[in-house]
Amino acid sequence: MDCIFDKIIAGEIPSDKVYEDGEVIAIKDINPSALVHILIIPKKHIESVNHMDEADSALIGKLIYTASNIAKKKGLSSKGYRLVFNIGEDAGMVVNHIHLHLLGGQKLGAMV
Amino acid sequence: MDCIFDKIIAGEIPSDKVYEDGEVIAIKDINPSALVHILIIPKKHIESVNHMDEADSALIGKLIYTASNIAKKKGLSSKGYRLVFNIGEDAGMVVNHIHLHLLGGQKLGAMV
Repeated sequence: MDCIFDKIIAGEIPSDKVYEDGEVIAIKDINPSALVHILIIPKKHIESVNHMDEADSALIGKLIYTASNIAKKKGLSSKGYRLVFNIGEDAGMVVNHIHLHLLGGQKLGAMV
Repeated sequence: MDCIFDKIIAGEIPSDKVYEDGEVIAIKDINPSALVHILIIPKKHIESVNHMDEADSALIGKLIYTASNIAKKKGLSSKGYRLVFNIGEDAGMVVNHIHLHLLGGQKLGAMV
């Protein structure tokens, strides 16, 4: 098990946890790109969006739903926020385990 | 019905369609932010990620799955791509009907 997110999920590496349930964990990004930058990660190890099966749709949709709930709790719902999946080198994906970026707390610039 | 995406889905406004099934439509963005810029839109009118119910998770996950299939067909899988939901003013959301941006075909910059 070489995946840093698997180690965080297993509690082997400390993290600043925002939310956790049986399927999903949310942690603060240690190198934030915005005033609020949270990662929502499925506990199931799926390498990237490229590797999801159709049967994973509900789980991946739950990442979005979880992000919307965190945004509500953080008071971001009315002003807005951005949710991002990066896939592969062109997008600068670093850890090969699906993770959704929740970015907000400020005016956000271009998407690319 | 004042929503431009509802009108596109109903065929009342023309669009450059990339994919369609019973639940989802994908069209080229008319004002692209990257060499490849496609919008994946649920036919169900949900105003934004803020307005999704937990029961919508499978449908929203299907947007991601559909995007991954389009990326495969467009030859983007190996080099990479980015998927983005914007919510509200801080993120520059323009049309109040959930839509997922698929961005790729080039090196992508920062997420915000």
